[in-house]
Amino acid sequence: MVKAMDHHQAGDGGGVSLSEAEKTLDPATEREWAELRGLGHRMLDGIFDYMQGLKDTPAWREIPAETRSALGQEPVPRSGQGAEAAYESFLRDVLPYNSGNVHPRFWGWVQGGGTPLAMLSDMLASGMNPHMAGFNAAPTLVEEQVLRWMAELMGMPAGTTGLLTSGGSMANLLGLAVGRHACAGFDLREQGLRYGQPLRVYGSTETHSWLKKAMDLMGMGTAGLRVVGVDFQYRMNLSELRAAILEDRAAGYRPVCVVATAGTVNTGTTDDLEAIADLCAEEQLWFHVDGAFGALAYWSESLRPAISGMERADSLAFDLHKWGYMPFEVGAVLVRDGKKHREAFATGASYLTAMDRGPMAGGLRFAERGFELTRGFKALKVWMTLKAQGADAITQLIEQNVEQARYFASLVEASPELELAAEVPLNVVCFRYRGADDAQNQEILVRLQERGIAIPSGTTLAGRFALRVANVNHRSRREDFDVLAKAVVKIGREVMQEAAPDR
Amino acid sequence: MVKAMDHHQAGDGGGVSLSEAEKTLDPATEREWAELRGLGHRMLDGIFDYMQGLKDTPAWREIPAETRSALGQEPVPRSGQGAEAAYESFLRDVLPYNSGNVHPRFWGWVQGGGTPLAMLSDMLASGMNPHMAGFNAAPTLVEEQVLRWMAELMGMPAGTTGLLTSGGSMANLLGLAVGRHACAGFDLREQGLRYGQPLRVYGSTETHSWLKKAMDLMGMGTAGLRVVGVDFQYRMNLSELRAAILEDRAAGYRPVCVVATAGTVNTGTTDDLEAIADLCAEEQLWFHVDGAFGALAYWSESLRPAISGMERADSLAFDLHKWGYMPFEVGAVLVRDGKKHREAFATGASYLTAMDRGPMAGGLRFAERGFELTRGFKALKVWMTLKAQGADAITQLIEQNVEQARYFASLVEASPELELAAEVPLNVVCFRYRGADDAQNQEILVRLQERGIAIPSGTTLAGRFALRVANVNHRSRREDFDVLAKAVVKIGREVMQEAAPDR
Repeated sequence: MVKAMDHHQAGDGGGVSLSEAEKTLDPATEREWAELRGLGHRMLDGIFDYMQGLKDTPAWREIPAETRSALGQEPVPRSGQGAEAAYESFLRDVLPYNSGNVHPRFWGWVQGGGTPLAMLSDMLASGMNPHMAGFNAAPTLVEEQVLRWMAELMGMPAGTTGLLTSGGSMANLLGLAVGRHACAGFDLREQGLRYGQPLRVYGSTETHSWLKKAMDLMGMGTAGLRVVGVDFQYRMNLSELRAAILEDRAAGYRPVCVVATAGTVNTGTTDDLEAIADLCAEEQLWFHVDGAFGALAYWSESLRPAISGMERADSLAFDLHKWGYMPFEVGAVLVRDGKKHREAFATGASYLTAMDRGPMAGGLRFAERGFELTRGFKALKVWMTLKAQGADAITQLIEQNVEQARYFASLVEASPELELAAEVPLNVVCFRYRGADDAQNQEILVRLQERGIAIPSGTTLAGRFALRVANVNHRSRREDFDVLAKAVVKIGREVMQEAAPDR
Repeated sequence: MVKAMDHHQAGDGGGVSLSEAEKTLDPATEREWAELRGLGHRMLDGIFDYMQGLKDTPAWREIPAETRSALGQEPVPRSGQGAEAAYESFLRDVLPYNSGNVHPRFWGWVQGGGTPLAMLSDMLASGMNPHMAGFNAAPTLVEEQVLRWMAELMGMPAGTTGLLTSGGSMANLLGLAVGRHACAGFDLREQGLRYGQPLRVYGSTETHSWLKKAMDLMGMGTAGLRVVGVDFQYRMNLSELRAAILEDRAAGYRPVCVVATAGTVNTGTTDDLEAIADLCAEEQLWFHVDGAFGALAYWSESLRPAISGMERADSLAFDLHKWGYMPFEVGAVLVRDGKKHREAFATGASYLTAMDRGPMAGGLRFAERGFELTRGFKALKVWMTLKAQGADAITQLIEQNVEQARYFASLVEASPELELAAEVPLNVVCFRYRGADDAQNQEILVRLQERGIAIPSGTTLAGRFALRVANVNHRSRREDFDVLAKAVVKIGREVMQEAAPDR
């Protein structure tokens, strides 16, 4: 039983004797330590069994009413029931009803599945529990090393600084914030947006929704965002972008940043990054690339040409918990000009003064590259994975995911009942059951999901609903896509039959 | 060895056969699964040994040059060296040089130490790896349950919604963003800050540095922040606040939000929350409380009177990885009016459309309460801890930390060589070596730290440097404070002796 416990007196080698009355959340005695450790070993076996057995489980299952009620109505636990009982609740009420993205046939949205080694690293990180604002400790050096590796893998130059983030939204927000600060033409941090010219940011209709949320949060509003159209391949229309910039300058706006995308969420398309980089250089605009998943394709020599120009970004955002296969949360932002990066966020507070010796040496290097002060040790799982499994292993899986997407696209094309809804430039396949309307294709999607067969998601392309497979899954096999293709056809027939039973 | 591996053919119960050529980041064979699991058990023992032995280790130690170089110069690991070798590097280069906040004599800044049970929960959370935007899965219900428990423990009413965050900075940012949106008087998300009246936010000189960073990021600039003075107890001066609001209204500003603090970072002081709540109600301003650590004192009946009024907050930010003793990262924001909370962040994106059945049922409830879309399962460690150990255990430790702070203050007062630098309203003790100047007190601090005796931090109060003990440590005992007091006196004499060797 692990409640708040008294420290024990015996066997302590430290110079400090313990007062019996004082409490701790650690186990209090050798026996209690051994008990919790034993439970820990059973938890580790339990979660390993779960991961090892994933392919034999449904991709999703509905939460039973009694579980829903247990998780909805329990009052605040004032006194503890012990760790064993809590773990039993977890095994009964939580683990079986997971959100599915760990499963080999999950391709919904863009969600990585995690790995057992990264999970163990998360355990070690949580146990060490370093405070990652910066300061003088090995975890800080680990994060710096991971960031240097990322800069090199993404083709960014020495002098690039970075920060691991909760994910793509935050990484993108930080990149945009640095760009806004660097290009505003006045002291934005001091004066705020009421001062100076109104600022303009450019994205496309395919830019992920983080950008609107960032414009809101940053006070520029949707009005500060110019949404540029796309060509038939869903790439940003550059003549429209150029015209918009000219028009805005003439109207008294100050263009500050173009947000390009490497791997759009809808179709996996990449904007013409070389051309946008050229345009930004000419127009002295900040070139931000949202490469949430697509940036990872840069690691592959064969896929790199499609996202060429990304390495010219002033700031680049991407996730390691998407196509880097890491468990949540770990994204990253890289900023080409480290000085500008720091200038956008560094502050001074008397309780945070750096010293030149001891634990505070080196200052708050990470807090000065982003908004957050307290940060966890997200770097460890990336560091352990790269050291243990190697960047090449990840690159091979990225290529495998693209091959699998092409394979699935070929299954769609080979089936008279299915049709592609867009080209397949990378790892995203949008498709439909031919002849079914939007509601019927949605129904096919929901049945695939609720039967636990597979989890694609859906989107709207040119006004029409499409099923969407976004493959960032290191557990998927070609055969999993065979299962999906067959199931879509089967359920498609079922749905069409229900709609027109006499046909 | 755990590199990218071939799936094995034998023993798979699933309906899908595997192609030998395809890879995964999971172990590929039963044998490899067993090997990694075995390593996992050794990792678990290693980190348990580390946690169990903390009190017999120095609170901090300098990183040796060869370790620094190993962590600074290794090129990108293209091919993996296996999980065993990566773990050996971790044991050799990372674990021994931790940032210190797990140690029983760490009271620097405000950093919780984590617990072994929460660490195990982080392992389970990482293995499950649910995507916490919302949707229909048990982890979503776990986070909702934790948020309900938090609202109840903080005295907030039914209808309150919340979100677990990376920490206090993000929780505060979100609360302020909801308040700004609710009180701007125009559609800020659409129009941005150029539209409407200029907005004003109020804090005090003691408000944590997150507020300036938030004003920057939100585009309001430091110019949009009115910094109000404090009384001799470091509480916000309310007549000055009232005058500032009147003055700003007269000058054409629109006051939107007062940021009050429950437990200031410098001295642990709490503003007069009842009076500020009254003022905000009168003036129709958003009442935001930054209770990063102080809010947790609300759980204690004996400590609650000092922070009375906090439960009237429109938004409340606090950390569970500070005085809730959880490992990083887990903070929380609670918003009294759930509708306003959602209105500040909800968006629509075609690839994120909710369905009424299957895994997407319920929509993106959490993504619609904050900026981030992807979020990890931070809730599990809180849920497991409350169920296993109980809220009362945490409350008792909070009370214990306050008693320990008072005890240490009494040691300071009892020593002719030491002096308090501020009152001790809660768990923060600011003090000096009497007669030493700022540089000498800083030197005492650094020697305490670099010798690994204890980790207080420092701050500046009324222009003078002070050592600062912020006690949110569930591993500390009274005896640890005896060690600190004795060491400060010893090192103080040493430093003074060096300054005036003949005295």
